[in-house]
Order: sequence, then structure tokens, then C-alpha cells
Amino acid sequence: MSLLLIAKDRDMNPWKEALLAVDKNLDVEVWPRVEQKDRVTFAVSWNHPKEVLGAYPNLKVVSSLGAGADHLLKDEAIPESVKLARVMIPSLKSQMGEYVLNAIQNYRFHTSRYVDQKREAYWSKHDAVPKSDCAVGILGMGEMGEAVADLLLNNGFLVNGWSVTKKGIEGVNSFGAKELDDFLAQSNILVCLLPLTKETNGILELDLFKKIKQPSYLINVARGGHLVEEDLIYALDTGVLSGACLDVFEEEPLPENHLFWNRPKIMITPHVASITDPNEAAAQIVENYKRSLSGMELLNEVDRGKGY
Amino acid sequence: MSLLLIAKDRDMNPWKEALLAVDKNLDVEVWPRVEQKDRVTFAVSWNHPKEVLGAYPNLKVVSSLGAGADHLLKDEAIPESVKLARVMIPSLKSQMGEYVLNAIQNYRFHTSRYVDQKREAYWSKHDAVPKSDCAVGILGMGEMGEAVADLLLNNGFLVNGWSVTKKGIEGVNSFGAKELDDFLAQSNILVCLLPLTKETNGILELDLFKKIKQPSYLINVARGGHLVEEDLIYALDTGVLSGACLDVFEEEPLPENHLFWNRPKIMITPHVASITDPNEAAAQIVENYKRSLSGMELLNEVDRGKGY
Repeated sequence: MSLLLIAKDRDMNPWKEALLAVDKNLDVEVWPRVEQKDRVTFAVSWNHPKEVLGAYPNLKVVSSLGAGADHLLKDEAIPESVKLARVMIPSLKSQMGEYVLNAIQNYRFHTSRYVDQKREAYWSKHDAVPKSDCAVGILGMGEMGEAVADLLLNNGFLVNGWSVTKKGIEGVNSFGAKELDDFLAQSNILVCLLPLTKETNGILELDLFKKIKQPSYLINVARGGHLVEEDLIYALDTGVLSGACLDVFEEEPLPENHLFWNRPKIMITPHVASITDPNEAAAQIVENYKRSLSGMELLNEVDRGKGY
Repeated sequence: MSLLLIAKDRDMNPWKEALLAVDKNLDVEVWPRVEQKDRVTFAVSWNHPKEVLGAYPNLKVVSSLGAGADHLLKDEAIPESVKLARVMIPSLKSQMGEYVLNAIQNYRFHTSRYVDQKREAYWSKHDAVPKSDCAVGILGMGEMGEAVADLLLNNGFLVNGWSVTKKGIEGVNSFGAKELDDFLAQSNILVCLLPLTKETNGILELDLFKKIKQPSYLINVARGGHLVEEDLIYALDTGVLSGACLDVFEEEPLPENHLFWNRPKIMITPHVASITDPNEAAAQIVENYKRSLSGMELLNEVDRGKGY
């Protein structure tokens, strides 16, 4: 039996080393140079090329290398009988919290504007956006959402949380599936942390933006598919939104000729909000591999019906 | 008796309104249109023109409009018999904490680099500076320093604090006057929050930079006079410092032709880290004015000997 590491645009050798550091007797293959495809029962993937996994007849589990499983769910070459899992480790949550807090403070304190002014040797002060105009609304109160909420509460922000299954998290004003409008009307800064599913695809669109409390700001740290890109441009141009910070995009890398690059009200980071550290994730992956070999229940198994 | 508001480059009318909102019977004059100079006993100043205050024969107190009193101490036209005070309100401390935390996170997460990349439609990821390489050293553990330390501790940073009088603040590794080298050797990110005095003028110079733990970063939110500007340029060019975030400068506004503007490793903000809110400060100023009229001890009086 062997474990396969597969990613289109990432060096997986540090991952191999990290897995072997946990258990030096593991048999680890790294795509595309796979010696014995029929021995692979467990694959760890980040954006693997579509249909490639169809060539592994004894595959039992595919685990995402990170917290998102949408890239696995959309690959129809993975048979229904194959179980899906994802990695959820503390540092993914703490990084996400720090990214979101930093994005909010950069909005409040006009950081990108000051960087731009520096280039022009231009000294001009701008009033900070008061905290009272920064009620944060988190779309998606899973493990990530909860961790982000904790950090924001800890830094003095008012936090609203929306999720299909209404959560009772201390300090967070919780809203359920049918209370989306109320949630938006009470939130200035919308943070998208939803899993990407059929239901959430394109959820960030103009009608929703119009329901956010003014002044309003958007932070998308989930998936590019959540956002209707042309609606964001329209909302920024018409003042429906005062700005946005985006870490994820429909197409990554964001194409050179994409409209977002030229919009001063958009802050862009290249999908770096929360990066899985091989050395921290390896133990969880090895644990799941061994669970799959002995037929035990997986950690962080993905529910194909729910999509996360 | 009257109270004078005086500033060179700031509209003081919101201050007059804020003071009158606290006590509508106050007699408030706004420089330069002062009707009765001999009735002025209390002045509230921010960077007043030198020697102007010599024209007020019955002046008893000059209060800084903010937390810094160096602009008062350096004006020899203010007689020794005039008491000096400053404003210290909670929001000055919380703003400073937020500014410093944001500056640190922008260093760790390469924010200004991503803003620059956006202009060039360039997608490239940079590893975050790990928190373990971000031990923070705060120079000056007064009220501001303590508030900044609290927020950083609360956000998971290791915090060292240096002050002439060694402080015992929970969670902070405290260093005294003679332990500066030890303090620097254990701190990656140096935050200057010192008062500007004869002793601290020019303290941020090359020999000190060389003693900071690598990788090192400088944040100056105190006064431009603390920094030897040419030493910063040299330290950045030679890799002694990996970057700096500056909110204060020897000359403000920073002159258009200043070298700092063109240095990519320097983040510049136009003296906005901590701004006194008239509506929050007014009650403290009125209280001090009334204390001076009745001969009581002042709040936040400045010790001319110590310089703060």
C-alpha cells in the first residue's frame, strides 16, 4: 500500500519529507513519477489535474492538502466510493484570523493608500474608519469562521455570524439560514469563509452587496467561485461597496489583463491567507492514512452531500 | 480668565466646540485672533509657532493637545514658572496599539509588497515572517508602551520592554536602563515609544540597530528626533535592518525630495498613529483648566527635568 502526493503547481517534496519524518516506513509516491499506481490507496491532493486520479484502481481516500475540498468534489473522475477528507490544523485557523484582522485594519487605516502616496512622495492624512462603523459579518461559521470570530472579538470588534445551521458561539451574534438579510443589515464588513458548494457558488453578488450596512467592505478568503466578479466592479463603481480585499479568484494566478488589478479600491493578495505547513499537517495525514488502512472512521471527512 | 487654543497647522474650531460642549460658560480664544491676551491663563497647544506664547503675561499652564510634550519643552519663550501638561486618554493608547500591531502584521505579511505587485498586475507569493522571528522590543514603557504591550501579548507576540525605570508588567520581559544590549539582543522588532528628551534624541542609530536580533525591523511612532535618518538608510542598504515603518519625521510633512520616499523597505504614514479626539479629550482639558484656576495639582503634569 502507498500514499500519493499530487499537486499541479506546488513542490511536493517537502511534504514527502514531512510525512517520512512522522513515519520513516511509509511508502510515499510523488506525482507525476508514480512507480506502482495499483499500490496507491490514499492520495493527498492540491488542485490535481482533472481525471488523473481515475488511473488509480485501488484508491480508497483522497485528502485535500488544505481546508478546502471543492477541488476534489468537482473532479468527476474520483469514484463515489472513494472517501474524501481535508486537513484542519490550528495554524490554518490562526493564520486566517490574522489575515482577516489585518485586512480590516488596513481598510480602517488606509494602508494601501499610504503605500500609493509614498510612491508619489505625497503627505496627506486620512481619518481612520471608526470601529463603530466596522461591525463584522462572517459568512460561514465552521471551524475557520469560529477562529476568525474569536480573534476579532478579542480585538474589540462586534461580530455577527451567519451559517445554515445557526451556531451558539459566545460573544457572536448568530444568524441562521433564513436570517441572511438581518445579518447583512447589521454588518459593515462582510467576510466570506463559506465552503464552495452549489448553494454558495456566486453568493457574493450585487443584490447581497446592497443589503450590507453602510459603510461596507468585502473580504473574500474562501474561493473565487463565491464572487460574481462583474458585480463587485459595479458595486465599487457605484459606491454600494467602499472597497474589497480579495485573496482568492475564479482563475489563479489572476490573469494579467484582469480588471481587478486596476481598481484602486481592491486589495489583492495571491491566495496566501492560510497556507498549510507540511510539518504541522503531516501527523494528521499519516493518522488518516493509517485509519483508512485499518478501516477506521476518518478525521475531517468531507460529506459529499453537504459539500464540506 | 480664558483658555487659548493654539496650533500652527490644525483647525482648532472643533476643539473650541468640544470644550464648550463640556462647559458652555468657558471663555475660549482661538489663536491667532486673540482678543484679550492678558486674560489667557491656560493654553492648549499643538506645535505652536515658537515664541508666540511669550506675549501672554498671565499664562500659568500650557497643555499639549496630545501625549507628546517635546514641542513645549523646546520652546524657550515659555517661562520656567509656567506648568506644562499633556493629554492622555484611553483612545490615544488603543490607537497606538492598533497601529503597532498593524505595522508588525504588514511587515510579516508583505502588505506593501502586495500593493506594489498589484500595480504591476504581478502574482507572486512571499512566505510570511514567522511569529517566532517577531519578538517585539518596546523602547519606552510608559502608559503608551504598556498599552501596546498588552495588545501585542493578547495577539500572541513575545514582548520585551525597556525603560529607564524597570517596570514589572505581567507577561512582559522587563529590562532596565543598563540592560539595553540584552533587550536588543532578544528583540527582532524594535518599537520606539520613548519621549523625546536630550537623552533619547538620536537614540535610533547604527550601533543600536546592529545590536537588534536578526531578522530585525524598526517601528518609530515616537518622534522624528529619535532617529538618525542617514543611519537608517545605511542600515537598510547593508541589511542590518530588513525594513522600517515610520509615522514620525524630523521635518513634517516629510519634504518631497526626502530619501525615505524612494526606499522600498520603508513604510511611511503621515503622523497618524495616534490622533487626539477633541470630543474625548475636552473633559480632561476642562478639568485641568479648572484645577489650574483653583491652584490644584494638574493631571498629567510634565516633569521638566525628566522631559515627560
